[in-house]
Amino acid sequence: MLPTVAIQGFEGSFHQIAARHYFGPETLTAPCATFSEVVRQVASGSTGAGLMAIENSIAGSILPNYTLLRKSGLRVMGEVYLRIRQHLMALPGQQLSDIREVHSHPMALLQCADFLNQYHHWQLVESEDTALSAQRVREQGRPGVAAVAGRLAAELFDLEVVAEDIHAEKKNYTRFLVVARPENALEVERPNKASLYFHTNHTQGSLARVLVRIADLGINLSKLQSCPKPGSTWHYYFHADLEFDEPEQLQAALRDITPVTDGLEVLGMYHKGTTH
Amino acid sequence: MLPTVAIQGFEGSFHQIAARHYFGPETLTAPCATFSEVVRQVASGSTGAGLMAIENSIAGSILPNYTLLRKSGLRVMGEVYLRIRQHLMALPGQQLSDIREVHSHPMALLQCADFLNQYHHWQLVESEDTALSAQRVREQGRPGVAAVAGRLAAELFDLEVVAEDIHAEKKNYTRFLVVARPENALEVERPNKASLYFHTNHTQGSLARVLVRIADLGINLSKLQSCPKPGSTWHYYFHADLEFDEPEQLQAALRDITPVTDGLEVLGMYHKGTTH
Repeated sequence: MLPTVAIQGFEGSFHQIAARHYFGPETLTAPCATFSEVVRQVASGSTGAGLMAIENSIAGSILPNYTLLRKSGLRVMGEVYLRIRQHLMALPGQQLSDIREVHSHPMALLQCADFLNQYHHWQLVESEDTALSAQRVREQGRPGVAAVAGRLAAELFDLEVVAEDIHAEKKNYTRFLVVARPENALEVERPNKASLYFHTNHTQGSLARVLVRIADLGINLSKLQSCPKPGSTWHYYFHADLEFDEPEQLQAALRDITPVTDGLEVLGMYHKGTTH
Repeated sequence: MLPTVAIQGFEGSFHQIAARHYFGPETLTAPCATFSEVVRQVASGSTGAGLMAIENSIAGSILPNYTLLRKSGLRVMGEVYLRIRQHLMALPGQQLSDIREVHSHPMALLQCADFLNQYHHWQLVESEDTALSAQRVREQGRPGVAAVAGRLAAELFDLEVVAEDIHAEKKNYTRFLVVARPENALEVERPNKASLYFHTNHTQGSLARVLVRIADLGINLSKLQSCPKPGSTWHYYFHADLEFDEPEQLQAALRDITPVTDGLEVLGMYHKGTTH
């Protein structure tokens, strides 16, 4: 049976799109107002899994989520890459020339500024969520009002896409991690990616020693993120994503780097995600 | 002559406190609403220097500022570390028992939640800035209203500290970079710290090769931050801070690592900052 998946954001959000890609189109999602709430729901067992954005190809790491994840005790069981596509949507039958007002999250309005600025008479209204803006266009049934959101929002709320792919940066991707409680994070067969975090003793070359051992085993370090180490001002721990061909490489790496770290934990071993 | 220093935030903000520590108590500051505006003011020559927070010991890197800095063409000429201390301040003569309403930035209210929550009848009001909240207490002259802000705000706006050090996390430090146009960034004598960024060719072990050469020269890597490399999805450049005893070590490092990077730029060489 598919788990209910805690997602950040509302029905029709990019998190829901990503959840459907990973778990299938019938996936039930539990919308959460914040990422902390996603983690709480999964950790408490209210939902079987959760999905959280961890980085964006343009904006970079979502740093607070690295900290949330480390503190949560949850495990990473997979990842999804999603291309962020923003569309202008309105009530069916509305044309571009009918639009007078556009609602969306400030970040989405910014991503589409080049397009939106062509229409000087449009009033741009900031809201807390892209999909929620779309839902309100439907609920309030106001002609002349459009929302900027992902395609799923148009489908769910029966809106028509008036202009598609209106975002300026076409190569905008978000990476989502699929998380679960350790007992629910099913072991995948022959994983080719792992997420772990470690800290070193902060002597000269301590990080270099770890990375050399990883590289010597033919493992690709696809991401390295430093995060503040709680309780030790200006000391860091590192979150690392490793890609490899054979799980034996990872086992060898864990064996080789443990002695040169001051602490190491594997957040999860999983299959490298695909891009949708 | 001292430069006017562009700072993020208002008169009395932590940026202004940091600017006074670096440039002296008489420093003139030019308040800017955003970090982008700080960079614009310095880059355009409107101000001789700028000060921007780059990381916090609890929250971590302020990632957008790394990108701003890299794109700006500005140079780093120094750094300041500031302990973040929050105080409750009100009109002179007011006592704790008089307070009914507390204004501040949501982050400051959060940092002081343990203290504030002891007073169930206080109404907490979010504002855009700590120091601006203090200024308004003065301007509106409302008894019973307090602000949470740094000590400089109390001094500037003639408020009395009703309760000091009300932040929960006592080890909360912010690191600020002092930036200037290349022609205004005076060369410091015998620097012992440098900021640089580089990118590698993303083959296995490319980052390890760079870090090993740095470590081999006895240089301490005090910070390593990966940031998205524009135009190359899921590729990163690295911002690195290096600490060393002799500037000759840095020169040797630059010579040794250039061949194993795909691009390297020195953002600045300066003296390691002190903590205030």
